[in-house]
Amino acid sequence: MKRKIDLNSDMGEGFGVWEMGDDFALLDYVDSTNIACAWHAGDPERMKNLVAAAIKKNVLIGSHPSLPDLLGFGRREMAITPNDAYNYVLYQTGALQAFIQTQGGKLHHVKPHGALYNQAAKDLKLARAIVQAIKDLGNGVILYGLASSCVVQAAQELNVPIWQEVFADRRYTPEGYLVPRNQANALIEDESEAVAQALRMANEGEVIALDGSAVKVQADTLCIHGDGASALDFAKKIRSLL
Amino acid sequence: MKRKIDLNSDMGEGFGVWEMGDDFALLDYVDSTNIACAWHAGDPERMKNLVAAAIKKNVLIGSHPSLPDLLGFGRREMAITPNDAYNYVLYQTGALQAFIQTQGGKLHHVKPHGALYNQAAKDLKLARAIVQAIKDLGNGVILYGLASSCVVQAAQELNVPIWQEVFADRRYTPEGYLVPRNQANALIEDESEAVAQALRMANEGEVIALDGSAVKVQADTLCIHGDGASALDFAKKIRSLL
Amino acid sequence: MKRKIDLNSDMGEGFGVWEMGDDFALLDYVDSTNIACAWHAGDPERMKNLVAAAIKKNVLIGSHPSLPDLLGFGRREMAITPNDAYNYVLYQTGALQAFIQTQGGKLHHVKPHGALYNQAAKDLKLARAIVQAIKDLGNGVILYGLASSCVVQAAQELNVPIWQEVFADRRYTPEGYLVPRNQANALIEDESEAVAQALRMANEGEVIALDGSAVKVQADTLCIHGDGASALDFAKKIRSLL
Amino acid sequence: MKRKIDLNSDMGEGFGVWEMGDDFALLDYVDSTNIACAWHAGDPERMKNLVAAAIKKNVLIGSHPSLPDLLGFGRREMAITPNDAYNYVLYQTGALQAFIQTQGGKLHHVKPHGALYNQAAKDLKLARAIVQAIKDLGNGVILYGLASSCVVQAAQELNVPIWQEVFADRRYTPEGYLVPRNQANALIEDESEAVAQALRMANEGEVIALDGSAVKVQADTLCIHGDGASALDFAKKIRSLL
Repeated sequence: MKRKIDLNSDMGEGFGVWEMGDDFALLDYVDSTNIACAWHAGDPERMKNLVAAAIKKNVLIGSHPSLPDLLGFGRREMAITPNDAYNYVLYQTGALQAFIQTQGGKLHHVKPHGALYNQAAKDLKLARAIVQAIKDLGNGVILYGLASSCVVQAAQELNVPIWQEVFADRRYTPEGYLVPRNQANALIEDESEAVAQALRMANEGEVIALDGSAVKVQADTLCIHGDGASALDFAKKIRSLL
Repeated sequence: MKRKIDLNSDMGEGFGVWEMGDDFALLDYVDSTNIACAWHAGDPERMKNLVAAAIKKNVLIGSHPSLPDLLGFGRREMAITPNDAYNYVLYQTGALQAFIQTQGGKLHHVKPHGALYNQAAKDLKLARAIVQAIKDLGNGVILYGLASSCVVQAAQELNVPIWQEVFADRRYTPEGYLVPRNQANALIEDESEAVAQALRMANEGEVIALDGSAVKVQADTLCIHGDGASALDFAKKIRSLL
Repeated sequence: MKRKIDLNSDMGEGFGVWEMGDDFALLDYVDSTNIACAWHAGDPERMKNLVAAAIKKNVLIGSHPSLPDLLGFGRREMAITPNDAYNYVLYQTGALQAFIQTQGGKLHHVKPHGALYNQAAKDLKLARAIVQAIKDLGNGVILYGLASSCVVQAAQELNVPIWQEVFADRRYTPEGYLVPRNQANALIEDESEAVAQALRMANEGEVIALDGSAVKVQADTLCIHGDGASALDFAKKIRSLL
Repeated sequence: MKRKIDLNSDMGEGFGVWEMGDDFALLDYVDSTNIACAWHAGDPERMKNLVAAAIKKNVLIGSHPSLPDLLGFGRREMAITPNDAYNYVLYQTGALQAFIQTQGGKLHHVKPHGALYNQAAKDLKLARAIVQAIKDLGNGVILYGLASSCVVQAAQELNVPIWQEVFADRRYTPEGYLVPRNQANALIEDESEAVAQALRMANEGEVIALDGSAVKVQADTLCIHGDGASALDFAKKIRSLL
């Protein structure tokens, strides 16, 4: 029997007075939450409250560290060094850990956000730096990273546990990368298509790329986006079908 | 025999390309370092490197959390809530802890910075929120706070260890507060006067206030400012005399 | 015949990916727009687009400068100096002017935001510094400031044109100040009550304070909040009744 | 007779409590100042004071807009869009203009900073967006941009005046680009070599690239870095030799 796929969602991505998504409702339908750490979104109050809710609902808690780009929501690639990546992951994850530690929870994973996630997927040096940060944190913390990418190689090199992540509503290149958001066809808008892609990835371990080819993916965890209008419905549907 | 007074200094208060003070030299002359956490000064690289040097030199490591005011160096009072204060102390201290944990060190204390320090000294609700954050961190973490102020009361109420802090180069009001920096006579510019004040506080447990009165102070730790031209000389002199 | 009251609204108060209010719809129902300048909310893209829409719809354009506090939406008082206030108003207003100048519009007014607005209303030195900034900009730029407050006095002293502002949905103290937002009864939630207050202020030049007393106000411009669910309906109703 | 080369320097690149360079002394030895606008460095107080000094000393005033990256001093390339570049140049230049307008000065030029400067030199779409911003500002504002780069082409296309800039202390690739700062040989450390390069560029219109080849450059303005220990001496020497 196949291993049940983990469902994760990025949360806490409002900032100050601005809200994004209905995180607390979504917590009932996911297994893991990736909590923004105030560099692309999120703030200490949201971090604290989400940690409390995740502990209560028995959802696995991860940090969601980003490039320092609040204006661009961490989605714009920046020419940072591997040392920067190492530092940024530790700083933000540590900030989240304070809210976990004080509420009696446990840090389960780290999932880099946005451009940091994508840069690490393509750049082995950045990937290694991020993996090293997680290794140095110790305690069995797991990296969530793009399936079939540089972070998988880096994690294996450094013997850090990794859960390979797949996306229901993002299209893939034949090389197994996500199509960048600034391209017209980056997102799967049709829900039934997204559901079908999720099931294929979870059950068959493959995804149909832009060019129609089937690309093998190891699908340990599936990202459920939390900010769309139908995010909650989608999460319920996926959860019931898997 | 009197308890030897602890010498502490605020460090890591550059930011990005901008330097402040010669922290690494000063580490040889202090017992405790309070490391800026990037809200008023400091950045992840400085935090990491200072933690490494402090561990090597056996200096006690503390966080130095601030109001969110890089432009004003955390020196301008802000009308934050106690809940904000709680959150801000945890966020910044957690960020520092990541660099401590990954390098095998130990968080010894928390010393709020600038306006947050001064507001907590005067506002019991803010003081209690900060003390609660430290209590929730647990592990015997100590608060460094202004001697004879609200933070002392809050720490005693909540049974959190506190080291009362005194300043060699700041003048005191008859109530035992620091004279605010925006007043002309806030700073003691003359080194011999500062040295004399430090010795009196450490040995006699009192300070001469602006009006000439002697104010009782419990002097557990003395702050050595690290950013003046003669900071290093002053630290050496104080250390040799105490 | 009475002078028709001006209707103004704060706009452009999203930031990056985060939206707030339906500014473009609201532009059809107000006479003046106060555009956030990226210190408490707003960003260059929103500034540019709102200026374009305001020019097209013949709405008077003003800047809405703030304290530097994105996390707190500029609502937390800060101990800034008058010189800071002067600088902050010019910096932000200048940034907006670039988008006005390049699109062939005209800067009509400056309305300080949030805590800066409230601090200036109570602190004559801050008020004078802000008024001086507007005087130095020249070109007949008008200050929008709290009716019956320090900014009115400062504007009269420095001979700078001022439009006194009143609020339909905020309660007033007997001294003519707004009840601070952190107090339970700061906001008038009931729409008909807000409409009645607006009409009384516009037509009778007075408002009923918390203690039931009638306070005289000069009502040159009325602020329509743009971020509530019923903001648009309220704007339409007020506009039709006045 | 050859046109006298303009000497420019980046100034106002401290931030809050942090200083950088001795701008006010350097103003005596340059013809143009490029003033940081608070996105990579600089703040409203510095902007105001430098504008005042530049007006008094008859130095040409330009804005020095940057990517939004205070932590990285604007030196890290970011994947911004041309629309972002357009907006960022206008926002920052407008902010500076407020201090120029209120003090009776004139905006002479715009010189993008750091990574924005370098990205525009290589990316024609970014270059065109920046040039369009300057064109829309009107009033004959001049672009300072890297000699022989995309910004020169963009300026010629859009009929915007450009002064081509050369560097005394930076090495050049055979294609006429600056060697990136993260490469070991990016900087010319030896002063006499830097002086020789400056004279060759000003008098002969060429520079010796890394590979020994002579690359033609139109040298309208020469950048004098202001933050090194010997910046002032270097400025005096260059000025006397040209």
